[in-house]
Amino acid sequence: MAPSATDILPTVSNGTNGFAHIKKYKDRSNLVPFASRLKDGRALAQDVWSIFNAVNLPSDCINLGQGYMNFPPPQWVKDAAGEALATTATNHYSHPKGRLRLREAIKKVYGPLLGRDLDVENEIQVTSGANEGTLYSVFTAFLEPGDEVIMFEPFFDQYLPSVVFNGGVPVYVPLHPDLSGERPTSDDWKIDFDELARAITPRTKMIIVNTPHNPVGKVFTREELEKIAALAEQHNLIVMSDEVYDFLVFDNKEHVRIATLPGMWDRTVTVGSAGKLFSATGWRVGWLIAPASIIRPTLAACTRIVFCSNSPLQEAAAVGLEQIEERGYLAQTVKEYDERRLTLTSAFDKLGMTYSHPEGSYFVLLDISSVHWPENYPFPESLQGRGRDFNRACWFIAMEVGVSSIPVSEFYCEEHCSIGESYARFAFCKDVDTLKQAAERLQNLKRFLR
Amino acid sequence: MAPSATDILPTVSNGTNGFAHIKKYKDRSNLVPFASRLKDGRALAQDVWSIFNAVNLPSDCINLGQGYMNFPPPQWVKDAAGEALATTATNHYSHPKGRLRLREAIKKVYGPLLGRDLDVENEIQVTSGANEGTLYSVFTAFLEPGDEVIMFEPFFDQYLPSVVFNGGVPVYVPLHPDLSGERPTSDDWKIDFDELARAITPRTKMIIVNTPHNPVGKVFTREELEKIAALAEQHNLIVMSDEVYDFLVFDNKEHVRIATLPGMWDRTVTVGSAGKLFSATGWRVGWLIAPASIIRPTLAACTRIVFCSNSPLQEAAAVGLEQIEERGYLAQTVKEYDERRLTLTSAFDKLGMTYSHPEGSYFVLLDISSVHWPENYPFPESLQGRGRDFNRACWFIAMEVGVSSIPVSEFYCEEHCSIGESYARFAFCKDVDTLKQAAERLQNLKRFLR
Repeated sequence: MAPSATDILPTVSNGTNGFAHIKKYKDRSNLVPFASRLKDGRALAQDVWSIFNAVNLPSDCINLGQGYMNFPPPQWVKDAAGEALATTATNHYSHPKGRLRLREAIKKVYGPLLGRDLDVENEIQVTSGANEGTLYSVFTAFLEPGDEVIMFEPFFDQYLPSVVFNGGVPVYVPLHPDLSGERPTSDDWKIDFDELARAITPRTKMIIVNTPHNPVGKVFTREELEKIAALAEQHNLIVMSDEVYDFLVFDNKEHVRIATLPGMWDRTVTVGSAGKLFSATGWRVGWLIAPASIIRPTLAACTRIVFCSNSPLQEAAAVGLEQIEERGYLAQTVKEYDERRLTLTSAFDKLGMTYSHPEGSYFVLLDISSVHWPENYPFPESLQGRGRDFNRACWFIAMEVGVSSIPVSEFYCEEHCSIGESYARFAFCKDVDTLKQAAERLQNLKRFLR
Repeated sequence: MAPSATDILPTVSNGTNGFAHIKKYKDRSNLVPFASRLKDGRALAQDVWSIFNAVNLPSDCINLGQGYMNFPPPQWVKDAAGEALATTATNHYSHPKGRLRLREAIKKVYGPLLGRDLDVENEIQVTSGANEGTLYSVFTAFLEPGDEVIMFEPFFDQYLPSVVFNGGVPVYVPLHPDLSGERPTSDDWKIDFDELARAITPRTKMIIVNTPHNPVGKVFTREELEKIAALAEQHNLIVMSDEVYDFLVFDNKEHVRIATLPGMWDRTVTVGSAGKLFSATGWRVGWLIAPASIIRPTLAACTRIVFCSNSPLQEAAAVGLEQIEERGYLAQTVKEYDERRLTLTSAFDKLGMTYSHPEGSYFVLLDISSVHWPENYPFPESLQGRGRDFNRACWFIAMEVGVSSIPVSEFYCEEHCSIGESYARFAFCKDVDTLKQAAERLQNLKRFLR
């Protein structure tokens, strides 16, 4: 996940730079009011991301809050970017559909996984980043004002404003955790299917499925996806299947693509990401795979929103996909992330803390309800107004042991936030040395556990 | 300008690939209807860009229709991209505001031009491409449904859907050409200020100024900009000043930045482009400069739409701007484009055809009303239904002399298209050898002139 959305929204400067004309302008600020969609989309609110921003934390704090890697993309993929820069055409506009070479490479890798001979002209759309440009374009292409979009909580926090900015109405269905078992996993976060069915109205147009799931790490089972599919068929919904962590499934768990279930190709748009896959979150190359009936309007939207994604890094992503098999990249990547996961979860085991063992993605949710702090602990004012203790727990952990995380409440609507409020999200998309150091520091939590 | 927007929209495939399940899906296509904004925004219409797409023209046709370069970015700027790829952090997410180094470089170059000590935290926003991501974000940030946006015709064709997708209503004010003088220039396209004033209503929220202008090449005069500014002040409008061709002003013409006029900083957002400036249209790096009151909501929109622009090419653009002065890049670039312009306009002079000599940008408008073709000339069906002769003239020129251009009617609303319908746009952002070859071929037009 991005260092987030709301993460780092600017506040208007205090303007103490000594320029008289700036003072003048300040008196005339906000001459024209901004659009109400920004308020509805929570886009201007100060939130947990800005509070837990690195700048507010100790400088040596290990950042496991934000989901980007502290290691580079593979050298052979970077080399391909260098080669693209050396060629004239790959420094200029790409077709809004994406570069043909990349679309061919996507077809080669994902066609077999989807069991389809993908049509590169009509069934693949390259976008400027996966979760961002992509999701947004689909909403632009399909939402009429008032159309409802169902999302499972906790949800990737970009979904909400992306829906609202396009006139849609988010409808929240929580995953219910039960971590009371001996070795709880991400699979212990369950959908209440009656609750899901009740959430569907005549205005429902889309349902977002995110598997493997951020932040839970849940890999949706075939049975769960079949039930979702049945509801989508029954109510004629588009399923947006955000599968940007599809390459990170552990413990021999099966990653089921909802587009492969009977009848579901016609109504599913599958989302992928070169940034996640090749540890290049700053490249802004993602893609959609869907039937022409979904791609065509989405391309029309993409074309107007960003026109096209950047060319040299598309070319590099193409080479990455072309060689992914011969280089054994996927197996190696899962192995590396497995070690990272173990490094972090071992620290929690050693502390005797409860967490849900993630079966996919690079996040783990830790139950922080056992963390206690001195009564007079000096929390910043930004946390004072927020009644919820878990925000304080994350802050306390970051300040006292030097490892930052993100309270999961941010990924819930107000009404449901009690469901996930005792969890903190830790990202393990960091090199093993960093995670080992974090694991060591986390042991200092012991004396604060009750 | 981009190879355009509407350029290359896909049509749904005929699906003759022999897959039975694809046939099945086709029967279920368009299960969920797309959003009406796509129709309102002309986003699905077949238009002149798809008709004049390279694939429909002879393979050796010289493409002066679309505005991208056939030469690479400067080596030193590309080298900086290579260095960025070699660093871990510059392969990962950037701050949604843009990389600090790039914002500092923008401040260094544009601060003096705007006469301001720019605040890099609050007055600069890096975007994924200039005309695309940027304009779109500002509309997302400021338009309420029904808000009106004034644009001068002929207009950059992305403006229309960008406004409509965000709920806005485009209002068109034509530039009126009078090329009856001896040596007409782009300055002979004039605003009727009474007409402009009449176009403003209580719902008007924004006015788009594009100087130097695509496709006219007009560099708006200080007097014209002052009159626009007075109206913007009087009616409390935001001015979006699209200045992506600011580095291409010829004949000692003065490029006036409307943000520098008295009182205008407060309500102006100035748009710039690394793709245009550094001949790297496929890099997708642009920027906005505006007061915090405009940047803050726009950042909130950008953050949700694309999250951030790609990191390595932002870093390269920063180096480009940092060294622009010491390398004498601007003077050299204008000199090169001046030669390109002369190469093309000399061909028109030699033919004795009328055109408006462009004082800025890399486009020239040629009056093609004197071109005549045999009565039984075989035009494609896509042109048959279109009554306007200029479409046929551009097609005829492309087929008979092997140089493609774009009929300017596309940049007008239906009501006003007769104003510019006798013009074709030729782009001279091509190397001199290509332009010389085009100039030679164009002489074959002589026998078709009346």
